[in-house]
Amino acid sequence: MSDSLVAGIEAGGTKFVVALGDAGGIRLAKSIDTTTPEETIGRVIGWFEEVTRVHGRFGAIGIGSFGPVDLDRGSPSYGSITTTPKPGWQNVPLVGILADRFGVPVGFDTDVNAAALGEQRHGAGRGMDPLVYVTVGTGVGGGVIVNGKPLHGLLHPEMGHLMIPAPQTPGVVDGRCQCPFHESCLEGFVCGPAIAKRWGVAKAADLAADSPAWEEVGEALAHGLVNIAVTLSPRRIIVGGGVVKAPGVLEGARRHFQRILNGYLRVPQITDDVGNYLVRPGLGDESGVRGALELGLAEWARSG
Amino acid sequence: MSDSLVAGIEAGGTKFVVALGDAGGIRLAKSIDTTTPEETIGRVIGWFEEVTRVHGRFGAIGIGSFGPVDLDRGSPSYGSITTTPKPGWQNVPLVGILADRFGVPVGFDTDVNAAALGEQRHGAGRGMDPLVYVTVGTGVGGGVIVNGKPLHGLLHPEMGHLMIPAPQTPGVVDGRCQCPFHESCLEGFVCGPAIAKRWGVAKAADLAADSPAWEEVGEALAHGLVNIAVTLSPRRIIVGGGVVKAPGVLEGARRHFQRILNGYLRVPQITDDVGNYLVRPGLGDESGVRGALELGLAEWARSG
Repeated sequence: MSDSLVAGIEAGGTKFVVALGDAGGIRLAKSIDTTTPEETIGRVIGWFEEVTRVHGRFGAIGIGSFGPVDLDRGSPSYGSITTTPKPGWQNVPLVGILADRFGVPVGFDTDVNAAALGEQRHGAGRGMDPLVYVTVGTGVGGGVIVNGKPLHGLLHPEMGHLMIPAPQTPGVVDGRCQCPFHESCLEGFVCGPAIAKRWGVAKAADLAADSPAWEEVGEALAHGLVNIAVTLSPRRIIVGGGVVKAPGVLEGARRHFQRILNGYLRVPQITDDVGNYLVRPGLGDESGVRGALELGLAEWARSG
Repeated sequence: MSDSLVAGIEAGGTKFVVALGDAGGIRLAKSIDTTTPEETIGRVIGWFEEVTRVHGRFGAIGIGSFGPVDLDRGSPSYGSITTTPKPGWQNVPLVGILADRFGVPVGFDTDVNAAALGEQRHGAGRGMDPLVYVTVGTGVGGGVIVNGKPLHGLLHPEMGHLMIPAPQTPGVVDGRCQCPFHESCLEGFVCGPAIAKRWGVAKAADLAADSPAWEEVGEALAHGLVNIAVTLSPRRIIVGGGVVKAPGVLEGARRHFQRILNGYLRVPQITDDVGNYLVRPGLGDESGVRGALELGLAEWARSG
């Protein structure tokens, strides 16, 4: 066994990213399409078996997973994906399957808590605690690190469902959001499918760069970011995900963030330097899998 | 010096509550009206000098203060009240004055973080982590305990300024809140002065018990509590303050909390037992000063 080799798994609804690495980073990685649990997890196990023959065995596994997941170590379903609408993936005991197969400690958290951890250790969140990582894509999620550790409690953060005032950007006049559960939540205004429905296109990426949709997304996102800032007082918020790659979205969110706060939080980081307060991920699309490796390292240390 | 005696100060904008106690609780306490900083702090010091002659010296002081306060130990203004609108109280170095006078370690945090700590150690928050304490009175504040410690970061939580959808309760039709900074924030709908302005009375307590105002307050408060729940995933939220003593407010908040979430957070604590999730303080009006004693004990241990 290598002295320090760990396995990382970013378990997503569309793809799983698997990696072998150590505290220094990724040695090799692969993307695997998410199909059925049996097929997907089978391919994950197969890849780790293959790479360990060349690189040596790993001492722990870390998993950052799509959810909802059960993070309560005292619960019978600890380490499982629970009530996801994704067909076939309800109650899949990810941790149990991998712990049984490889006989090593398995660290487990949400995909967004893993991404926040990766960014704090190696990315745009170094030295920043509390740190928040928000992603806006097919859904909206948020992860939180406090005192170097992912935050969870009764469940885990579900920041996509922050309740916000309806955006006032001229364009769509419907004040009701697109969430099937809620009337006015963040995800219901800013996730890709919500944008598409709201603006009558097949997918959000079909909208022109100068569509007012992106201004509205920036405004709604800013309301969510203000709520995160006043609740957690993070030292930085990292904003990732496909929707935030659209031109002007992050810039609009920064502008509306300052407009909405209106001078209330009087610290130079917000009043003078919001571009360094609301930032893009430092690890690009690798935040999650780097964080998964860190979850593995932490669990190894804990069990050691 | 007693083996374990500490001094606690709940520094409020209306009154200071001072106490001598230990890990077991308060031995004696007194309330002092908040006037000028010189007079108020002079009376605080005088009381502690008097009681130590009878009860022995204390080993540390803990302060839970109104704010905003500087909690950054690396800052030149650490331990001060900073930009408060309260006349004369800007930049008062509370910690410095008391540390100089008594020559003991001084623990310092916000009034609401102290209250949350008091409730977690001795009140309705025992065994609950993360724990949130929200107070609704002349203003709205929120304190957070994560892994047994008060949460702060860039600043400290400022949950009064959570942005929420305007309440839909029939009555007042003005969708804009009363906050001088914001268009639609929690405090601007639910603090005492906002309720009074919104409903055209001299003070909120003048409203009849069956006024629709209380229903609106419950609805707006619920939006704030939902936002806290999805951001921090606390195991319990304690809701205190004078406004919540009005008949039906907490009950309304619980009902709207479940209505707004609409089954999204599927845990029995919320879906089946919200009365034990959103609860009144277990220490009545003593949460803050009990927490201040705990801040003193923690600082004593830290410096020991």
